[in-house]
Amino acid sequence: MAELPNHQQSATLLMSCPDRRGLVHGISEFILEHGGNILFADQHLDNQTGMFLSRVEWDLSDFTLPRESIHAAFRPIADALDMTWELRLSELPLRVAIFVSRYDHCLIDLLHRHSQGELQCEIVAVISNHPDLELLAAQYGVPYHLFPITAENKQSQEARELALLEELRVDLIVLARYMQVLTADFVAHYDGRTINIHHSFLPAFSGARPYEQSFERGVKLIGATAHYVTPRLDEGPIIEQDAIRVTHRDNLDDFIRKGRDLERIVLARAVRLHLDGRVLRRGNKTVVFE
Amino acid sequence: MAELPNHQQSATLLMSCPDRRGLVHGISEFILEHGGNILFADQHLDNQTGMFLSRVEWDLSDFTLPRESIHAAFRPIADALDMTWELRLSELPLRVAIFVSRYDHCLIDLLHRHSQGELQCEIVAVISNHPDLELLAAQYGVPYHLFPITAENKQSQEARELALLEELRVDLIVLARYMQVLTADFVAHYDGRTINIHHSFLPAFSGARPYEQSFERGVKLIGATAHYVTPRLDEGPIIEQDAIRVTHRDNLDDFIRKGRDLERIVLARAVRLHLDGRVLRRGNKTVVFE
Amino acid sequence: MAELPNHQQSATLLMSCPDRRGLVHGISEFILEHGGNILFADQHLDNQTGMFLSRVEWDLSDFTLPRESIHAAFRPIADALDMTWELRLSELPLRVAIFVSRYDHCLIDLLHRHSQGELQCEIVAVISNHPDLELLAAQYGVPYHLFPITAENKQSQEARELALLEELRVDLIVLARYMQVLTADFVAHYDGRTINIHHSFLPAFSGARPYEQSFERGVKLIGATAHYVTPRLDEGPIIEQDAIRVTHRDNLDDFIRKGRDLERIVLARAVRLHLDGRVLRRGNKTVVFE
Amino acid sequence: MAELPNHQQSATLLMSCPDRRGLVHGISEFILEHGGNILFADQHLDNQTGMFLSRVEWDLSDFTLPRESIHAAFRPIADALDMTWELRLSELPLRVAIFVSRYDHCLIDLLHRHSQGELQCEIVAVISNHPDLELLAAQYGVPYHLFPITAENKQSQEARELALLEELRVDLIVLARYMQVLTADFVAHYDGRTINIHHSFLPAFSGARPYEQSFERGVKLIGATAHYVTPRLDEGPIIEQDAIRVTHRDNLDDFIRKGRDLERIVLARAVRLHLDGRVLRRGNKTVVFE
Repeated sequence: MAELPNHQQSATLLMSCPDRRGLVHGISEFILEHGGNILFADQHLDNQTGMFLSRVEWDLSDFTLPRESIHAAFRPIADALDMTWELRLSELPLRVAIFVSRYDHCLIDLLHRHSQGELQCEIVAVISNHPDLELLAAQYGVPYHLFPITAENKQSQEARELALLEELRVDLIVLARYMQVLTADFVAHYDGRTINIHHSFLPAFSGARPYEQSFERGVKLIGATAHYVTPRLDEGPIIEQDAIRVTHRDNLDDFIRKGRDLERIVLARAVRLHLDGRVLRRGNKTVVFE
Repeated sequence: MAELPNHQQSATLLMSCPDRRGLVHGISEFILEHGGNILFADQHLDNQTGMFLSRVEWDLSDFTLPRESIHAAFRPIADALDMTWELRLSELPLRVAIFVSRYDHCLIDLLHRHSQGELQCEIVAVISNHPDLELLAAQYGVPYHLFPITAENKQSQEARELALLEELRVDLIVLARYMQVLTADFVAHYDGRTINIHHSFLPAFSGARPYEQSFERGVKLIGATAHYVTPRLDEGPIIEQDAIRVTHRDNLDDFIRKGRDLERIVLARAVRLHLDGRVLRRGNKTVVFE
Repeated sequence: MAELPNHQQSATLLMSCPDRRGLVHGISEFILEHGGNILFADQHLDNQTGMFLSRVEWDLSDFTLPRESIHAAFRPIADALDMTWELRLSELPLRVAIFVSRYDHCLIDLLHRHSQGELQCEIVAVISNHPDLELLAAQYGVPYHLFPITAENKQSQEARELALLEELRVDLIVLARYMQVLTADFVAHYDGRTINIHHSFLPAFSGARPYEQSFERGVKLIGATAHYVTPRLDEGPIIEQDAIRVTHRDNLDDFIRKGRDLERIVLARAVRLHLDGRVLRRGNKTVVFE
Repeated sequence: MAELPNHQQSATLLMSCPDRRGLVHGISEFILEHGGNILFADQHLDNQTGMFLSRVEWDLSDFTLPRESIHAAFRPIADALDMTWELRLSELPLRVAIFVSRYDHCLIDLLHRHSQGELQCEIVAVISNHPDLELLAAQYGVPYHLFPITAENKQSQEARELALLEELRVDLIVLARYMQVLTADFVAHYDGRTINIHHSFLPAFSGARPYEQSFERGVKLIGATAHYVTPRLDEGPIIEQDAIRVTHRDNLDDFIRKGRDLERIVLARAVRLHLDGRVLRRGNKTVVFE
């Protein structure tokens, strides 16, 4: 996925609507008449549903509309076409909160990738139910917020977390091996904006202890799945998956070790795809414009 | 997996037993004292169960025991060590029957690989509930046996099939996209000797129409699984699995098309592993000595 | 890659041109004003070269231009934009000749995929310097033309082959493990229209005996590369590559056996991509619109 | 690759010798007569060279030989069989020095894996020609040694580095994207004990700027190779390789980004294999007992 030259500003439209003639023309006309230049476009008619799906990214350097007017200017077009849409500006990177418990491998990977410029976002908070990873967050200069969770305080702690997320204007929550199940109420607040990594090839081995389940079943590949969180545990729309070979020489510890590499890579890819406006949610599935 | 030079004859011992000191020594002594030379050996202590697992293959060119006496000579050693074991002679390749329905891609692949020398076996019959693939079998000189199946005649046809398999002294049944569910009774006759290809990444999407299920769930990888058939449908010991990436551009026909490649390769690998005496069944799992 | 519904007719434009504002708009306007409906579009600005690259496919069912006028109608637009372009109509599938020598695995694979509807083309000839595969071609109803090649007759035989290809109006030549090096003159006649499979991960191990070279070097992966043929042996634009793991247990025969699977799959993918108008050649590289 | 239970001590013999009858028996007898119990064994006759290759690991908990006598006790057996061999004790983990320049991704990965128990070794030094990664080493408690290199001081600095390595009794040097070419003299001191990561699929794109070379050639996969360092740059025995898909959407920055994941994983696998005594060097190739 190509990068823009430094300092180039772009807008990205992600949309779906019932197919009709002239959709590409209509969108490109909007961009052209305001002086935009299309950088990348990916359009696709889903024959099964008759929906037209599209991601269009254009250069804003000579765009004549002020940034704050783009949404309003596009809305009539979207409404006329019965569009479900989202518009992103590269100069307004998403604000991300990472939830962790004790495992550090996904957190360290995300923080390192961010430091390398792989993830176009601001990481505004690490939130945890354990104090273990505070130093790691500090090394990357990210504030760490501790919310210990018990059966008794879960609802009140989630309320405090939600207040913090709102205060920090968080756009995306990443559950980086966060070992608590979020309540349906919490999930509803960040519907389509919470990404979890599950350490199996979903729908196989959902729920607890997937490596143990995989080991017992005797599979020859183990997997990892990044998905949007919905109230139904491990059943949300899948963003990215991958798998790696295991053999009879691998015991449960080897599954866990090999799985760490998978979890890191699958979660990082999913987060990057979301940040770059490449993931369109449709029902319980995703369209990923790679 | 290395091949022997032409005409070299070997014996392969596949075994498991409770671990104790001196197992490797005991087996190698048996081979040495009769003039055998070990070609490959793979031994492994399963810490979880305390079982010692091994595959040993040795050259028979100067072996002093007559072929027909090897089993009897080894039995006392095996008994003393409480061994579960199997002994194969390369000069007695397994006799294979392939079951098919209408899809030809797995059958053509197995027949072609056999013609290339990839599968060390005799393919003695193609058995089908449809007449469609008779010409294909004929092109490779394999007798084709038609057993149309209805709800009414299933048991009687299976009985006739079993009689034929016995007459042909079949060692291994390969279900190469055979679209009938075998009865528990049939399965029991070839327990551990019937390999099926299921077109999903088991245990995900077991049962009917796995590509449709995969498509509906929105997975990002589709898989295929070769396993031994047991009375519980799609739950037998897994021999081999693999997976391939799909995207939102792939519709159901693309899943089926991409899946054909997977099915072919996964089934062929599993059959080859079984023929080479590399698969040790342990409970509902397999140990594969690659 | 999604398929059209049965009987749906489409046109595909493959193009590159210097980037400027309004390109997408201009192309979509041409399609819209003649009643076409865009099915898939993939557009991409190459920042390094400043070239805009695009593949657009549209439904022709209500298209108002007669088929034979589409090229002429589009030409002025293409000329004005300094476009390099190609236009394909799905109702005019490419005419393909497959060149083989003695290895059958790629030929059987291509013929079988064609029989399954995976390759949208007409296979009009199998051409060979050996008689071995005539029966195989006959089984799929494809005429077989034998042109034995010696050092002396190479030029005259190639001249006869070229005459045949012209007579058969062949659009694409597939070298399916054809063991003769074509002359520069022959290559020039089908520049950008001849696909070869080389059994290594190019540019590593170009030239003769790549498996032997790979084995000697001790690589841990072996590869295969499908590329357009140019006068410089094994240096043409790469269309598709893949690789598979090998170990110290694999001897040269195993490299060859594992490689057969790779060769088949990589060649078939490249041919399919070319047939579907997804490969845009740019200098010595390709853009593949998957 | 299975792990031993905590605190279990084992010995590992890695060997090659000309094949003859009774090799497995001879080695297993040595282990048995001193009370050892074989945990894993992998033996293999290389038909091409007639060499027998083996890795045997045994439990030392009831072994009757004192640790310091094992080598001496085994030597007569090895000599009689004309063996090339190496014996490792798990209680004497290797001492590792990591060389880096400015890129941090391989270093952070190795340090993190070590902290997770994935790498059974002591990391006794990070050595660099730049000061940039000192803080990172400090976070994991590893001493950092700075040796700035210029054309003038290269020999003298290498002499100082060698003195330090000797003082620290370093067993293995890992070049984790170290951007200096070591002199042949330096290399000779750690022959077979220096692992480098090269960011291409060797032998393709050896030398400088492999990603640029890959990008220019238009390959569809990029690779990474971990190998032992020899005086001939990028031509040493390969330990591990892997590859990942790239498309026309990937520019050079994407190659570099995707490559970082490959480099990390391939280097870490190679180091782990070496530390676990699984890599047997034979001429310019390796045998890897996985």
